Amino acid sequence: MFELANSMRADGGGPVFDLSLGNPSLEPPARWKEAVRAQLADPTPGRHRYMTNAGFPEVRAFIAGREAERYGIPLEAEDVTMTVGAAGGLNVVFRAVLDVGDEVLVPAPYFSEYDHYAANVGAVLRPVATTADFELNVDEILGAVTERTRIVLLNSPNNPTGAVYGEASLRTLADGLRGLRAGGRRILVVEDTPYRDVVHDGSHVSSMLEHYEDTVMITSHSKDLGLAGERIGYLVISSRAYARVPLRRATSFCNRVLGFVNAPALMQRALPHVLGQPGGSVDVGVYAQNCKRMADALRELGFSLRDPKAGFFLFPGIPEVLRTDEGGDVALTEGLREARCVVVPGTAFGRPNFLRLSMCVDQKTLDGAIEAFQRVCP
Amino acid sequence: MFELANSMRADGGGPVFDLSLGNPSLEPPARWKEAVRAQLADPTPGRHRYMTNAGFPEVRAFIAGREAERYGIPLEAEDVTMTVGAAGGLNVVFRAVLDVGDEVLVPAPYFSEYDHYAANVGAVLRPVATTADFELNVDEILGAVTERTRIVLLNSPNNPTGAVYGEASLRTLADGLRGLRAGGRRILVVEDTPYRDVVHDGSHVSSMLEHYEDTVMITSHSKDLGLAGERIGYLVISSRAYARVPLRRATSFCNRVLGFVNAPALMQRALPHVLGQPGGSVDVGVYAQNCKRMADALRELGFSLRDPKAGFFLFPGIPEVLRTDEGGDVALTEGLREARCVVVPGTAFGRPNFLRLSMCVDQKTLDGAIEAFQRVCP
Repeated sequence: MFELANSMRADGGGPVFDLSLGNPSLEPPARWKEAVRAQLADPTPGRHRYMTNAGFPEVRAFIAGREAERYGIPLEAEDVTMTVGAAGGLNVVFRAVLDVGDEVLVPAPYFSEYDHYAANVGAVLRPVATTADFELNVDEILGAVTERTRIVLLNSPNNPTGAVYGEASLRTLADGLRGLRAGGRRILVVEDTPYRDVVHDGSHVSSMLEHYEDTVMITSHSKDLGLAGERIGYLVISSRAYARVPLRRATSFCNRVLGFVNAPALMQRALPHVLGQPGGSVDVGVYAQNCKRMADALRELGFSLRDPKAGFFLFPGIPEVLRTDEGGDVALTEGLREARCVVVPGTAFGRPNFLRLSMCVDQKTLDGAIEAFQRVCP
Repeated sequence: MFELANSMRADGGGPVFDLSLGNPSLEPPARWKEAVRAQLADPTPGRHRYMTNAGFPEVRAFIAGREAERYGIPLEAEDVTMTVGAAGGLNVVFRAVLDVGDEVLVPAPYFSEYDHYAANVGAVLRPVATTADFELNVDEILGAVTERTRIVLLNSPNNPTGAVYGEASLRTLADGLRGLRAGGRRILVVEDTPYRDVVHDGSHVSSMLEHYEDTVMITSHSKDLGLAGERIGYLVISSRAYARVPLRRATSFCNRVLGFVNAPALMQRALPHVLGQPGGSVDVGVYAQNCKRMADALRELGFSLRDPKAGFFLFPGIPEVLRTDEGGDVALTEGLREARCVVVPGTAFGRPNFLRLSMCVDQKTLDGAIEAFQRVCP
């Protein structure tokens, strides 16, 4: 997508209105820069060397304390492994838990990189339909469990739909998964939640850590601190997980042998001086405003969508007149491209007749994109 | 090893003389800190976001120019992929090139993490003996080639032996590998060379990039800039490699889907302002002095070793009287541990009756370690 939009930019045809890429457009807060500067000025030796593969003990303790408070659960520093972003964390957990042929259930539509992460360890991703509103469909998930199912992978707030799974759904899922234990199945919930601090109304996003003991939560500061390129994230193992101690060892070991070795040292060290501090995050209001403005414009053109609750993606259904059995989204994507607006067809997420639009853009791009939609849509 | 030495430190038995860990003990140069500070002060937006998975184009161009000059070969920015250290680069190349069941030949003794990197993609590492001086044994390598051999993995300067493979050996290997093409085999040389700028007399380390077209060179700044914890490295694809273009695409893609996504942005940006500049590296003289002092002390105790040419590891043969058929190195390691000195037995590298000692230590640790050896060795 980078390459396509770049080649269009170079073709002399004028500006490109690129809504394809979820590259957080807000700058890291000044407080983060100050924290990094302070770390650089610290004369203590050894601050840029290897550390224990799971990360600096004091940083892990800080994260454990913060997450324990957020979710009202007990956690220890050893439950936290610092990772190279959430993508690193997901690969670490998959490698730690999955064998060749194991299955991962994921509510669809889903972030398509998950297919690759499963393939990296020879596992198989099994998409499970969500409701019409992209809410969790617990019956579908439980019905899709086979004897090879090891993981249910949840991404809430969701990319691409912007849905936030409700607490009631999570509880029902937890009960259902617990119910499978009688049959000898113990399924791990892996939660990928890099958008949990990019919620438009600032409300709390419920985590399976609150509801289900066998949970590993993975997040990053790519979005809320605008640090996507710096690769800092972490995973948290529930202190009630039945495999808590082996999971700690396995995630630390996999962090090492997969070649991450450890999360970048300077990025780890800065976190305790930024998170939870005044000015310690980007202003997500910009994303919320962009989403609102685009959603309103799309509805006027006959697209169907609910306002997303979090993140910076819209996932609208295309107007009735443009829908086809194979999916009119690909043709619409082509039409928009001719109007110099780049979007991702829903087909790429297994949902024909939808589009995915990223709102990580400046106002000029948003203006141009809305005009392009108005020109292309009948 | 971290954990063992840490638990010994906590046991109340006094100081621990830890020679087990190759954690570069020199601090990053002041120039690097200045470069990072300058990057933080740059108001250009977008400097901490995702970039093309292979890295910032201008950083890749800088690295390509530098490597082209160093090895006297043409290179383009697109031949370079910035990676999460050399460990990240190795995993990227293995994933890009190897299928399940493929074989990687590696001169032994070798860095034992390679076993894991091969296992990550279902490939098999096949150790090949070196000479008594740990020089490349080209006949052994060529003789070990099977129809599943895809990669010859070279690590020069070598961990654990400190050997630097001679130019003549590399040329002979190149000729031999070229000779296999008639039989339909095209073997990629992957060179892991993070110690090439930690050479005790500062001399040039020859690379297979100079001698053999199908080469990917991987390095990092963990050692020469003391940035092991910051995870910055890169890989360079020979501009003469027959699979040059597919390799470029595959390494960039694998960097993404393995979860690295990209090398840390700030660390990438700093490199052009540090490498090749006055004060732009650590003073490796400290490692050279430590190696010399320890090597002299060991020879007096009956150990056999040549002075290493590079890096910060010693790999001495233990005294005749301590050798056994199963390897006296494990017993000696235990004895040294009782004297509070931690070393790695050669058995861990497939070479019984040897020890691996890291010289990334301060003078007090070196003093204590030498005393421990003098006490324990008869």
